[in-house]
Amino acid sequence: MAQAPGPRPLPSILLFLLLPVGTWLLIRPLLDPLPPLPALHASLGFAIFAFLATLYLVPAVGPTFVKARLFGRDLLKPYDSQIPESQGLVCASIYILLLILFIPFAFSDVFLDFHEGHQEKPPEGLVVTEFPHYKLSVYLSSLLSLLIATMLGFLDDVFDIRWRHKLPIPIIASIPLLIVYYSERGNTNVVVPIPLRWLFGSLINLGPLYYVYMSLLSTFSTNSINILAGINGSETSQALIIALSVILNDLLYLPWTIDLHIPLHLLGSQAEVEFGGVWKAGMAYGSRELVERHMFSLYFMLPLVGVCAGFLYHNWYPARAFPGDTLCYVTGMAFAVVGIQAHFSKTLLLFFIPQIFNFLLSCPQLFGLIPCPRHRVPRFDKETGLLYPSKAGLPQSKKPPSKLAILVLQVFSALGFIELSVDPETGLLETTNLTILNTLLVRFGPRKENELVKLLIYTQIAGSVFAFIVRYGLAGLVYDGNRR
Amino acid sequence: MAQAPGPRPLPSILLFLLLPVGTWLLIRPLLDPLPPLPALHASLGFAIFAFLATLYLVPAVGPTFVKARLFGRDLLKPYDSQIPESQGLVCASIYILLLILFIPFAFSDVFLDFHEGHQEKPPEGLVVTEFPHYKLSVYLSSLLSLLIATMLGFLDDVFDIRWRHKLPIPIIASIPLLIVYYSERGNTNVVVPIPLRWLFGSLINLGPLYYVYMSLLSTFSTNSINILAGINGSETSQALIIALSVILNDLLYLPWTIDLHIPLHLLGSQAEVEFGGVWKAGMAYGSRELVERHMFSLYFMLPLVGVCAGFLYHNWYPARAFPGDTLCYVTGMAFAVVGIQAHFSKTLLLFFIPQIFNFLLSCPQLFGLIPCPRHRVPRFDKETGLLYPSKAGLPQSKKPPSKLAILVLQVFSALGFIELSVDPETGLLETTNLTILNTLLVRFGPRKENELVKLLIYTQIAGSVFAFIVRYGLAGLVYDGNRR
Repeated sequence: MAQAPGPRPLPSILLFLLLPVGTWLLIRPLLDPLPPLPALHASLGFAIFAFLATLYLVPAVGPTFVKARLFGRDLLKPYDSQIPESQGLVCASIYILLLILFIPFAFSDVFLDFHEGHQEKPPEGLVVTEFPHYKLSVYLSSLLSLLIATMLGFLDDVFDIRWRHKLPIPIIASIPLLIVYYSERGNTNVVVPIPLRWLFGSLINLGPLYYVYMSLLSTFSTNSINILAGINGSETSQALIIALSVILNDLLYLPWTIDLHIPLHLLGSQAEVEFGGVWKAGMAYGSRELVERHMFSLYFMLPLVGVCAGFLYHNWYPARAFPGDTLCYVTGMAFAVVGIQAHFSKTLLLFFIPQIFNFLLSCPQLFGLIPCPRHRVPRFDKETGLLYPSKAGLPQSKKPPSKLAILVLQVFSALGFIELSVDPETGLLETTNLTILNTLLVRFGPRKENELVKLLIYTQIAGSVFAFIVRYGLAGLVYDGNRR
Repeated sequence: MAQAPGPRPLPSILLFLLLPVGTWLLIRPLLDPLPPLPALHASLGFAIFAFLATLYLVPAVGPTFVKARLFGRDLLKPYDSQIPESQGLVCASIYILLLILFIPFAFSDVFLDFHEGHQEKPPEGLVVTEFPHYKLSVYLSSLLSLLIATMLGFLDDVFDIRWRHKLPIPIIASIPLLIVYYSERGNTNVVVPIPLRWLFGSLINLGPLYYVYMSLLSTFSTNSINILAGINGSETSQALIIALSVILNDLLYLPWTIDLHIPLHLLGSQAEVEFGGVWKAGMAYGSRELVERHMFSLYFMLPLVGVCAGFLYHNWYPARAFPGDTLCYVTGMAFAVVGIQAHFSKTLLLFFIPQIFNFLLSCPQLFGLIPCPRHRVPRFDKETGLLYPSKAGLPQSKKPPSKLAILVLQVFSALGFIELSVDPETGLLETTNLTILNTLLVRFGPRKENELVKLLIYTQIAGSVFAFIVRYGLAGLVYDGNRR
């Protein structure tokens, strides 16, 4: 039997390079002159610490996980060693702890203490005193939801809950969000697309349905990452790319200090002409609320990128650590949190296109139309070292497939999502399992595991590019500019 | 080998009796006329639901815990069966979930919706609109601390952390409390006792030391319950009695509607004479802030009593369920939360007298002055079915006890806390282990386990009675009335 690879070496150069940068970013908001977005400096600093902490802690606590019987075996490898499982718990703990430590940077007037001379003329940009105090409640309720998601994810790993039972778990985790949203009398209006306005008007109050929508969003974002799993790095890389896409979207709304001065005083004039400036640049078009929402989103997404990147280092093929359900739960919840609290849930869903595709494709198996084996991951061939699409047979005797099932499979097959074949031994019809990973193997042929995860990453990136085109190119057709 | 007892039967009469009462208490605040303390009705209702949920869920999920290898064996029983361990997790989950669901009752204007006619004349007493909004942040940060304590307690159970490593765990759990306290610019002044005022003045600002004090308080309250463990029902009953003592103390400050009308209108006068009323009764003497603090404390303590009582039913001798560290962590943290947030930490510490005694008594063993065996619980004698004090030998060869150790033991022995004896076989000096449980057995003779836990409960109650005498009888000698 082949030997499992040892732990991946940790590049100490990274530590020496990033530690001072992270420290500087945390100290910078305390120094004069105050930067335009002090809390964002700190958030970036925390993201770097999140990366480093995950990078070093995951392998350090690995043996402890194995000792506590939290380990798995890699089904797609020739070796059979015990690999620490549920290590998303380490990521989640670091992530949430740093988000808690970040609170004074975002929600207190700690900076002004250090800048008493500036109190007369508050520095330009988003300084903390400008945050309405109630935002702290919103932030804390988000942390509660993340923590509950972590806890439930870990319980799922320990108690091994059946998937039908764990489907509603994210709803429990979203309760703090919903309750605080309700207590704060959060907005439950949605903007109606132009073609439907003759029917509903331009704004519609969803009322209680809005809460249903919010809890379904968290259910979707959590479970859709969870079911697109099975090969090394798949969960982590999905989360990483979605988080980066959300960050890119947030950056579009920031008050960039693109400031155009026309130096009229050189010509002897008293007045200065000035364009741009912190509140005028960016997609926010001067709306401070929009800027604050996207800052809120950045506070959650930057450290998430840090932990995901740090974890991917160990989770990359061949994996030395498995994320477990914990990572899917906490990342899915983090996306739901920013989508809900920063009010861009529709844009967020656009970044989930591969997950939506995977979910729709999986439905016939998830809902029992077609037999669903316990593992739907691609099949590993020890001879070639390649992954092939895994198959599910359609029994003819006991419970033959319905006509609807056959029709669905034929449509999927015609679209090239699956491959239908006849088992030469039994003569039974079989289909490749209905997951995006198998579809990629059907379309692009058998691959090595690391190439398949790269294909998945490219798909995710392509999905995000498409999402930006839809959001900023085509959305103008159904929504007017006011919604920004 | 003796047979382990089966699950304890659940009294369905309780369910049918309490379910309508709990439901009524939740609905009552929504009905006209509004009761004087609507949120307190709801809190009491949630406490009843906490009790029922714990009562029914603990045995229901027991087999799942055993299956996930979360079980222990009862060292003090003749049988050797697997008993579900860490079931404090069930208590903590129910507790925290209900505290989250309670948020709209305490922090939103949900009641006023149902009482629109009353908006002109807000009902007397503490209605929710009177809560400053920032209190929600304080409440949420408390929930975060409780949740982290739960999580860490459970991780402790799963990973079996060594006690020296887990000592600082409650400090991590108290971080949200401290951070939000800091961000909110919480008060760090303490009132100086009268005899010291010539030195420090009447108020002293502890500054950063106040945060150290707060984190040490949570460390103490958590660990002191954890080390007073080992027999069926000991942890749960301690938590229950401390919670009841805190509730009793809180009730002293409530705006009781003891209202004395002198019906002058019967005599033809226009004016009414009125004494008492909601803001004048109770130890709060009209201080709304004091009332609100003790309401806050009640919101956390009432459901805690519910879960502890429900769990004690299954944890009582002979135990069908073990609490694990999770219960100690979450209850200890809950006490720290109310002590800190409601500003009665000194009173709170008075309710911990048996724990403080146990901790001081344990110090020589905890800090290595005297050998500390892995288990210090009393010794079970299968013949008699009684518990005897367990003993620790003092080796003469390898590492003989220091003179200090001998002196300490002699003092403890003279005070009757321990029994020194000479092992007839080896001729070595040995001492009963330094815990309050062994002290009780030394003082009152060998007992059955259920009698020992009752002795512990009486000790705890006596401690609370003494605490009330000190707090309301003697505190006047060193503090003036202003501190109330």
